[in-house]
Amino acid sequence: MFLAEAVIINFDLLFFRLTSASIHTTSMQNVKPLLVSFLLTMIATTAFSQPVNKSREIKVNQQRIESRIFDLAKFGKDSAGKGYRVAYTKGDIEGRTWFIDLMKKAGLDVSIDYAGNIIGKRKGQNPSLKPIAFGSHIDMVPDGGNYDGCVGSIGALEIIETLNENKLVTNHPLEVIIFSNEEGVTIGSSMLAEQYDPELLKLKSQSGLSFADGIKAIGGNPDSINQVVRRKGDLTAFIELHIEQGGILEQEKIQIGVVEGIVGIQRWNVTIEGFANHAGTTPMNMRHDALLTSARLMIAFNEVITSHEGRQVGTIGKIAVEPGAYNVIPGKAVLGMEIRDISVKKIGQLFHETEIRGDSIASATGTKISFVQASKPIEPALTSKSIQDEIKNSATTLGFTYKYMQSGAGHDTQHMASICPIGMIFVPSKDGISHSPKEFTKAIDMADGANVLLQTIFGLDKE
Amino acid sequence: MFLAEAVIINFDLLFFRLTSASIHTTSMQNVKPLLVSFLLTMIATTAFSQPVNKSREIKVNQQRIESRIFDLAKFGKDSAGKGYRVAYTKGDIEGRTWFIDLMKKAGLDVSIDYAGNIIGKRKGQNPSLKPIAFGSHIDMVPDGGNYDGCVGSIGALEIIETLNENKLVTNHPLEVIIFSNEEGVTIGSSMLAEQYDPELLKLKSQSGLSFADGIKAIGGNPDSINQVVRRKGDLTAFIELHIEQGGILEQEKIQIGVVEGIVGIQRWNVTIEGFANHAGTTPMNMRHDALLTSARLMIAFNEVITSHEGRQVGTIGKIAVEPGAYNVIPGKAVLGMEIRDISVKKIGQLFHETEIRGDSIASATGTKISFVQASKPIEPALTSKSIQDEIKNSATTLGFTYKYMQSGAGHDTQHMASICPIGMIFVPSKDGISHSPKEFTKAIDMADGANVLLQTIFGLDKE
Repeated sequence: MFLAEAVIINFDLLFFRLTSASIHTTSMQNVKPLLVSFLLTMIATTAFSQPVNKSREIKVNQQRIESRIFDLAKFGKDSAGKGYRVAYTKGDIEGRTWFIDLMKKAGLDVSIDYAGNIIGKRKGQNPSLKPIAFGSHIDMVPDGGNYDGCVGSIGALEIIETLNENKLVTNHPLEVIIFSNEEGVTIGSSMLAEQYDPELLKLKSQSGLSFADGIKAIGGNPDSINQVVRRKGDLTAFIELHIEQGGILEQEKIQIGVVEGIVGIQRWNVTIEGFANHAGTTPMNMRHDALLTSARLMIAFNEVITSHEGRQVGTIGKIAVEPGAYNVIPGKAVLGMEIRDISVKKIGQLFHETEIRGDSIASATGTKISFVQASKPIEPALTSKSIQDEIKNSATTLGFTYKYMQSGAGHDTQHMASICPIGMIFVPSKDGISHSPKEFTKAIDMADGANVLLQTIFGLDKE
Repeated sequence: MFLAEAVIINFDLLFFRLTSASIHTTSMQNVKPLLVSFLLTMIATTAFSQPVNKSREIKVNQQRIESRIFDLAKFGKDSAGKGYRVAYTKGDIEGRTWFIDLMKKAGLDVSIDYAGNIIGKRKGQNPSLKPIAFGSHIDMVPDGGNYDGCVGSIGALEIIETLNENKLVTNHPLEVIIFSNEEGVTIGSSMLAEQYDPELLKLKSQSGLSFADGIKAIGGNPDSINQVVRRKGDLTAFIELHIEQGGILEQEKIQIGVVEGIVGIQRWNVTIEGFANHAGTTPMNMRHDALLTSARLMIAFNEVITSHEGRQVGTIGKIAVEPGAYNVIPGKAVLGMEIRDISVKKIGQLFHETEIRGDSIASATGTKISFVQASKPIEPALTSKSIQDEIKNSATTLGFTYKYMQSGAGHDTQHMASICPIGMIFVPSKDGISHSPKEFTKAIDMADGANVLLQTIFGLDKE
């Protein structure tokens, strides 16, 4: 539903130049409702074209984004000097403290929820509206990079700074969310969405602390974790700006990825049972080599995945063979296999085809191949069509190229899908590298993404 | 050179019935040389047909062989009750003590050399001749079987018992050699042949003891190890009866394998360097998956090995991938690869073809594949053509089927090749299984092999 147009108020140029009721100068927040009402009425009669154009002239500060990326990168190093801002560690805690300070300086009302998520609230013009939320995470995998999560977190803060500098107040309240421990198990967001297993709290996190103790260490309260849940409809939307972590945008020289959804993930342990025997005395035609059979299966799996149109991916990332000696024909191999796609049905189809190929390979090689689900499937999360449209329109208006794509990686946003409509904006990753010190996104790309996020928020705020 | 025919002397039938000078009753050993000389002259004029036939009537005692196999199997168990007569362990020492006792009871002059090899000597009629030696080993791989080495060791002892029971003395001295620590690194035989690295003595053996301490534990003396070396020509021949450890004889229903040679072994570590990346965000066509590339190489290697005529074998028995997680495309894989053949040239050719296939796979996949020799090549050892003939003739005369074959496994005998002509006799292994509790050879097959060994010794003794 349309409520009001975006507005620019530049006190440097003029005391106020209202063109919309939905966004006000911050100094207007204390102005008596009567005056506001008067102004709104007055403004409602003016032309809309100018404010739209004006709001599109508001730009984030690219230099500030880049400089904050570098500042954040200083927090959390391991003994070898490698990036180690792993959730719940000293680096994570220090990075969070620094970030909270910036949020407070930007005027946000900051709190830490029971799950350790950092919530920064900014009032909107219409308190009855549900907040538009956006954000990401600042924790890191061991030896990780400086962009994954950070671009979306610093980008979210930049939205607030930009609104402040332009003295704009959105119609909707805004909420910046910096999720706790994304890299571990997206635990902060899954707790908001009540999609976590309580048993997890007892397990040891990458930091060495249990998840429960880790949550305490960052200011949460595992004992009250069930109170952190957001109900469906508590937010108008959640939008996450993120690096692509893949190489498509860079390769195709596209500035903005409009994410259609976050893939589902299914994993299997595949056991190939052959027969271990002497590598010298067993003729080639009398072998039941579990590793050679694995090789055939790996190639068949790759053929299954690549023989279909679409963006599905399939990976065998783990292998163990027994007994594992030069002079013994492997008797057993266990592979770790996963398939990701936005469609559960397609994952099922690809797996089914792999099973069929596996059966015929097992028959041909005199081995046994069995597939066992390795973990609970992660369901795909589709983004909201209307948010996709807002992102696409924002990109177009800003003159950016864009591409509809899926997120092959999991994100906090997928849990938020059970609370509210979700959206994701991708920006290019150099060489498609992520979870690595080589991870890199150009400052201009980060700024472009943040500008698209800003315009998307404006767009949603109008609705 | 022909010296004398084999002979049977059966005191149960007749005091003596000499038909040859080369084999005498044990009671003849003290007969004055003059009498011997007289008898030899007399015998040399008699017909040859009968004694040959008679010597072929002498048979080993199948039941005794089998019963001793079962007795030996009782020595050396791990805590789980699995076979663990690993060299230098309590089980090995107890097994050796039991075996030495049997050797002594069989009238052998038993000693332990500095390398821990058990040597049992039996005088021959002609002390100027170099001994005909035969034997094997009684140590075991962990969780190993009861036939590998044991058949040849108990078979060798059975030759002595059979000669004793038939009151025969060969022309040549005989030597039963039970090599120390065959399964570790054929260390006893390699020391006899001076083909070991002295640094090895400092290393830890499977038993937990260093090789030096292990050798001490079984009655050897590592400090004097250099005195253990046998010079070229010190023995007339060395012959080893052994289980095939492969499935060819059983599959082809053949009783005796005439071993043409023991294969050479070359090993490589093959490193495949791709690029580790996010398994969700990296499209299939932008991957440099080191494990998938390994699969292609494994299949190419198998194609190279199997595309040539012959009995060469090639195995990839080891694999390690990095980082080794479901959600990361493997960036690196290291394979352990070996090729075995009786021809060094052929091994070189097969490796060269594998390298060429590797180059083209690396180009096609955008990866790097490198091959590094993993250990010093083990040279092939050819058996003596004349001993092969003796084995073949013995098998034929005994009415056994036979097949020329190569030994795909390494054996002590290959070191003996640098001292004297060598020969090996194979008997079937059930299902081709070895180095496993499932290892099995039928009593009749063991007896057949021992009978061929006996006849081969008779044959060599005539020369």
